[in-house]
Amino acid sequence: MTVEDIARRAKRAQIELLRASEAKKNAVLLKIAEFIDKRKAELLNENLKDLESARSKGLSSAIIDRLRLDEKRIAVMISSLQEISKLPDPIGQIIDMKRRPNGMLVGRMRIPLGVIAVIYEARPNVTVDVAGLCIKSANAVILRGGSEALNSNQVLVNIIKDALSEVGINPDVVSLITDPSRDRILDIIKLEDLIDLVIPRGGEGLIKFVSENSRIPVLKHYKGVCHVFVDEYADLEKAYRICLNAKVQRPSVCNAMETLLVHKNIAEKFLPRMGDIYKEHNVEIRGCEITRRYIPFAKPATEEDWYAEYLDLILAVKVVNSIDEAIEHIRKYGSSHTESIVTENYENAMRFIKEVDSSSVMVNVSTRFSDGYEYGLGAEVGISTTKIHAYGPMGLEGLTTLKWIVLGNGQIRE
Amino acid sequence: MTVEDIARRAKRAQIELLRASEAKKNAVLLKIAEFIDKRKAELLNENLKDLESARSKGLSSAIIDRLRLDEKRIAVMISSLQEISKLPDPIGQIIDMKRRPNGMLVGRMRIPLGVIAVIYEARPNVTVDVAGLCIKSANAVILRGGSEALNSNQVLVNIIKDALSEVGINPDVVSLITDPSRDRILDIIKLEDLIDLVIPRGGEGLIKFVSENSRIPVLKHYKGVCHVFVDEYADLEKAYRICLNAKVQRPSVCNAMETLLVHKNIAEKFLPRMGDIYKEHNVEIRGCEITRRYIPFAKPATEEDWYAEYLDLILAVKVVNSIDEAIEHIRKYGSSHTESIVTENYENAMRFIKEVDSSSVMVNVSTRFSDGYEYGLGAEVGISTTKIHAYGPMGLEGLTTLKWIVLGNGQIRE
Repeated sequence: MTVEDIARRAKRAQIELLRASEAKKNAVLLKIAEFIDKRKAELLNENLKDLESARSKGLSSAIIDRLRLDEKRIAVMISSLQEISKLPDPIGQIIDMKRRPNGMLVGRMRIPLGVIAVIYEARPNVTVDVAGLCIKSANAVILRGGSEALNSNQVLVNIIKDALSEVGINPDVVSLITDPSRDRILDIIKLEDLIDLVIPRGGEGLIKFVSENSRIPVLKHYKGVCHVFVDEYADLEKAYRICLNAKVQRPSVCNAMETLLVHKNIAEKFLPRMGDIYKEHNVEIRGCEITRRYIPFAKPATEEDWYAEYLDLILAVKVVNSIDEAIEHIRKYGSSHTESIVTENYENAMRFIKEVDSSSVMVNVSTRFSDGYEYGLGAEVGISTTKIHAYGPMGLEGLTTLKWIVLGNGQIRE
Repeated sequence: MTVEDIARRAKRAQIELLRASEAKKNAVLLKIAEFIDKRKAELLNENLKDLESARSKGLSSAIIDRLRLDEKRIAVMISSLQEISKLPDPIGQIIDMKRRPNGMLVGRMRIPLGVIAVIYEARPNVTVDVAGLCIKSANAVILRGGSEALNSNQVLVNIIKDALSEVGINPDVVSLITDPSRDRILDIIKLEDLIDLVIPRGGEGLIKFVSENSRIPVLKHYKGVCHVFVDEYADLEKAYRICLNAKVQRPSVCNAMETLLVHKNIAEKFLPRMGDIYKEHNVEIRGCEITRRYIPFAKPATEEDWYAEYLDLILAVKVVNSIDEAIEHIRKYGSSHTESIVTENYENAMRFIKEVDSSSVMVNVSTRFSDGYEYGLGAEVGISTTKIHAYGPMGLEGLTTLKWIVLGNGQIRE
């Protein structure tokens, strides 16, 4: 089947999900969870093939790690499906119904986007998370996983299709594109009449390629240059804990801190000990001039460091004169991903929340919490740093839109 | 100034609108209304220049009509600003705040998109409607009106900038691009780092040009092929009234009906008299075979007629076997704009509302109500028939998005 055939079938089948009751959609999710558990041996076996081929191709240990399934990761997939089944069904919800002067009622109904295409790399759990969220939100989905995970994804999509059939929904609503050629990505992003949204998840190269060639709207994020601002009114114990966690708990991911901003009035008290803590954890510091006064082992930061997404145990540190300078720095160098202020001052917390226009803005917590699961979305289909449609982690609601509904009794326009 | 300079200044100035209180933003709107009233003579005079030049260039009477300002149209501009000033301020509103198991609060805050570019044609009232909605929603806006309305738009933007200055907000938040070259449109749609959304309003050629060349997300609608479905359970008096109004009250606009679908069980009762009514109003009918049995003067409809946006006193009419066939017809030939069912049957009304995925779906009212002003949005910046971000008429809320906010007291991720 061509990509266009797959998309055409997806579009046709999607109305079955739209018509399905919440109970029926939840039954599919729980059936997928059940089948994954039952066919665990087969799944681990196919995953082993992917791992062996990845090793023989010399793929990096980071990719191999993301690719690997084990008992624990399979348990997380299953519990993610169970979580999604417990979330309220967004579809059909009617909001803001108001009566107009002529007596007609005008409101909005939440509806699925229609057909979603998700283009992603290594991690097989994305297959299950995305399919689960799409089924619950009544969207058909076309999955284009990385070639390195093909065997694992193939089993998972077979399981999903079997679960759909068993509950009585056309299995065309979830499809996997198995041809590894990049031309298939081009095929997908030209089908503007059949596909409503494309979500590329992966490296900057993939995302650029999709955005520049797509005629379909694209939701994406390029980088996560996340900041923590330690305000002059910070509680230092919280600051040490948050700044350590945001940098070192998992430095390779997009919601790890890359730049630390420190108010000048607290720098002398805060930075020396923070420097020691980072030293213990092997964090390389690249600091501004004032920073280097308090952290002697810090290297000088260059202009490029303020833009850098290290994804590693490296941190840029800058001392700022005011909260205004901190906000300006973030607006200039940030990537609209996630920023956190550490402060006990009410007004500064409120200003930071209002004036920093990143997709997640936090007070007194680690930036590492910025993800769909931690926010209670059950899972996420991706993160958007474009302000259009969805901004930040996208769960069920990000896969929906609102149409207008008007209920009248014969009104005409004069 | 280059387009990039204008956009850079707009982006820098936008934070002033974000910081401004609701009272201050409303003061700007009312000040604009006051200045338009005071400088009415100047405005009418400049508009006269546009009208004369349009006539000398031989532009169509439809364009000249849209271009023309008069006392009544100026009064509508003013009242539109007053309406917008009365609408609740969407910015800063926090919704869905929930406590997570670790004690942090996660919710969402409504924020402006940032900088919007609107590319439009003839009508000078768009200048005021769009600027009013953008100011209230704290967005900076770059206006690119049609060259035929340049003198009128220039006065209006001067008035808007004067009002901003008088209230103490940087007037760079509203700008007009006066160079009529299409290259300036290309300049706008390449500034992906400075502009967050582009809204083209105008003919299909303009919209295609913008969508195909833009790196910035585009909100648009191409066509309005609106349907009315007269169900077998229709109240015939309502059906006659709605079907007449939807076609003839203003046939040249996108929310006028273009195709009438009639259930076969009511066709014999409904179509002969409806045909007579249309005849009286000089409506040309292009009908399916059964339609032509009941409306003898109808011409045969071809496949193209089901796709047609006539914008004229022409109507395609088709008799369908069931509500399913009506819904399928709309899904196949429709343009996702507006569809209305005429029925007294509860279940059919509910099915139509749920299964028709157009941006406005109506029961027992004329499709002509599908616009921002009629829906209570004060005005509209445009209509979207793409399901991403906003779907249907876009008012204040369509100019905003939601960011995530997280309030904690020292939480770190384990």
